[in-house]
Amino acid sequence: MGDNSTSDIIINKSATSHIGAVDFENLSFGNTFTDHMLVCDFRNGAWEKPVIKPYEPFLIDPSAKVFHYGQAIFEGMKAYKDTNDDVWLFRPEENFDRFNKSAERLAMPSVPEEVFIGGMKKLIEIEKEWVKKGLGNSLYIRPFMIAIGSGVIAAPSTQYRFMIILSPARSYYSGEVKVIIAEHYSRAANGGIGAAKAAGNYSAQFYPTKLANEMGYQQIIWTDDATHTKLEEAGTMNVFFRINDTLYTAPVSERILDGVTRKSIIELAARENIKVEVRPVLVSELIEAADNGSLKEIFGAGTAAVINPIVGFSYQDKYHELPKLENSMALELKEKLTNIQYKVAEDTFGWTVKI
Amino acid sequence: MGDNSTSDIIINKSATSHIGAVDFENLSFGNTFTDHMLVCDFRNGAWEKPVIKPYEPFLIDPSAKVFHYGQAIFEGMKAYKDTNDDVWLFRPEENFDRFNKSAERLAMPSVPEEVFIGGMKKLIEIEKEWVKKGLGNSLYIRPFMIAIGSGVIAAPSTQYRFMIILSPARSYYSGEVKVIIAEHYSRAANGGIGAAKAAGNYSAQFYPTKLANEMGYQQIIWTDDATHTKLEEAGTMNVFFRINDTLYTAPVSERILDGVTRKSIIELAARENIKVEVRPVLVSELIEAADNGSLKEIFGAGTAAVINPIVGFSYQDKYHELPKLENSMALELKEKLTNIQYKVAEDTFGWTVKI
Ligand SMILES: Cc1ncc(COP(=O)(O)O)c(C=O)c1O
Ligand SMILES: Cc1ncc(COP(=O)(O)O)c(C=O)c1O
Repeated sequence: MGDNSTSDIIINKSATSHIGAVDFENLSFGNTFTDHMLVCDFRNGAWEKPVIKPYEPFLIDPSAKVFHYGQAIFEGMKAYKDTNDDVWLFRPEENFDRFNKSAERLAMPSVPEEVFIGGMKKLIEIEKEWVKKGLGNSLYIRPFMIAIGSGVIAAPSTQYRFMIILSPARSYYSGEVKVIIAEHYSRAANGGIGAAKAAGNYSAQFYPTKLANEMGYQQIIWTDDATHTKLEEAGTMNVFFRINDTLYTAPVSERILDGVTRKSIIELAARENIKVEVRPVLVSELIEAADNGSLKEIFGAGTAAVINPIVGFSYQDKYHELPKLENSMALELKEKLTNIQYKVAEDTFGWTVKI
Repeated sequence: MGDNSTSDIIINKSATSHIGAVDFENLSFGNTFTDHMLVCDFRNGAWEKPVIKPYEPFLIDPSAKVFHYGQAIFEGMKAYKDTNDDVWLFRPEENFDRFNKSAERLAMPSVPEEVFIGGMKKLIEIEKEWVKKGLGNSLYIRPFMIAIGSGVIAAPSTQYRFMIILSPARSYYSGEVKVIIAEHYSRAANGGIGAAKAAGNYSAQFYPTKLANEMGYQQIIWTDDATHTKLEEAGTMNVFFRINDTLYTAPVSERILDGVTRKSIIELAARENIKVEVRPVLVSELIEAADNGSLKEIFGAGTAAVINPIVGFSYQDKYHELPKLENSMALELKEKLTNIQYKVAEDTFGWTVKI
């Protein structure tokens, strides 16, 4: 299992490619998929042979458990092409481990490494043309697993499907991001599934996010559901707060996703002698720091946008604008991190893995 | 919309029926489906015409939002056949209302009444042979809605599919039910989606329930996630506690599903002069009542089992056995309620609706 051997993958190539019809300059995130996908089914207690085949809709029973009981987990990663046309993954073992932690929490079987990483490498090798060179260009990788067993009784499925689909992406610029701090709604419970990358966690966020959007905010910073006093994470990003010259971020917990970007930023900041404190960050601290001018930056960290600077936040109907800085830590860390991902700077951490 | 008109349903009948192959004496819950299903798609901001057609798998894109972001809700109801061969629904308006509340919380479109109730009636009319007479026999009805729009960006879908599938059911006897009271895991957050019948809520329960099963308990009674001091509900049932001659049940909240069986029991108990107090019930009260002998009964209430008596519970590694009673309120209420559902007793509430 350890060698990510791909000899056991059945490959069924598409007769044609639609790459010529894709406008790579104008990609909207997550809407275009490559020619092939990986499919691997779990039945009778075992994983069957993974298959790489043309990307296409598949048949599923109306009573499949994923539709009724939400057994569905996913990962989000990216592949980058360097100037030598080599393609690189970023810390894939982290996503693999997190995927299987999510699987355990949702009572789903764990996926073997040779399927998750081995299959991913093989699939990307086949789709190499879809990874474009140049900072900001990437191939977004979406491994996911769903319960395909049928039956409307609330119990775990015995049949699952693991898939990997790929979507070419441009640099993710979402405009100026203003956030609102959650005072009523929540994304995760103590003892719940917030730390899993489970589909159900996202559906919980859409309605409150829609309300926030209507008020002019793009995202919500979630707080702990019991007291709404601790700052936790945003929709699909962990969050960092810079007060004076220190970065603060919440510790990961049962309620918070253990983000790969977050942990990479913490390590990168240490190397760059930027002080990071990982501890619960209170809403009251944030307000105090905003009021006394020591709050310099807030930024989100996640695979899609890497680092997403936030220009201001609202709490209890009051909007707090953040200063416009010359020397933003967010932008500095983003540049350093993407330079590693694109092999422009040396990867002193050993994070990048060649395909 | 108010007249549940079904004139606009496209009906596409199956050439054959597999009813002859079904062993109605040995049905396992939720695994056998009738010949037809109802399908109604939402596209371009509107619901298309509902279609009744043969039950069969359907094609869906691997990037459909239901797989990635969990937009999926459902309902659970039953149809009963009386001795005159008439088929009856039980309080269908309640499920219809709750379905659209779930839809709102998950940022999904609301389903029109003529599709949900009108379509359901038409479908059951076609499948009338599948509803068997006799106490305990019923046709389980599963309306559900999933996000079928494609794209791996975490935002609500613009395309949805509403479906109704039907499964013949026998009386639901799950053996002696012992429960464990949740001390660590939770099913719902304050400000979360616990009050919605959302697929994601169920996937959160499977792993802790598996742990409970391994310890010899069939179900978990969930407590509030912040303090684990308040008794809330079980897997797919609300719960009632009888202390001396009073029934106690938690008020519905953001964390608790507003069960139709629960609310019917409360109304029925009032008619029968059984005292019911709807208020938070503390774990500490339960233990005290178990210790001093005033705890007489615990039972779950939900559509599948109607009322499910619980024989004992575990808390902090101590097992508390419940007394075996001659005059169980659970059994009395169950009989009264099922007699209304099967039209054996007069429906003084106007709960039953003829198809
Ligand atoms: C809820 C949530 N938090 C944080 C993140 C960031 O994690 P990562 O840096 O591994 O992409 C994500 C994923 O994108 C997420 O979905
Ligand atoms: C979480 C939960 N609680 C309670 C119930 C009981 O609700 P009802 O009586 O409407 O079936 C259900 C549904 O079956 C449920 O899924």
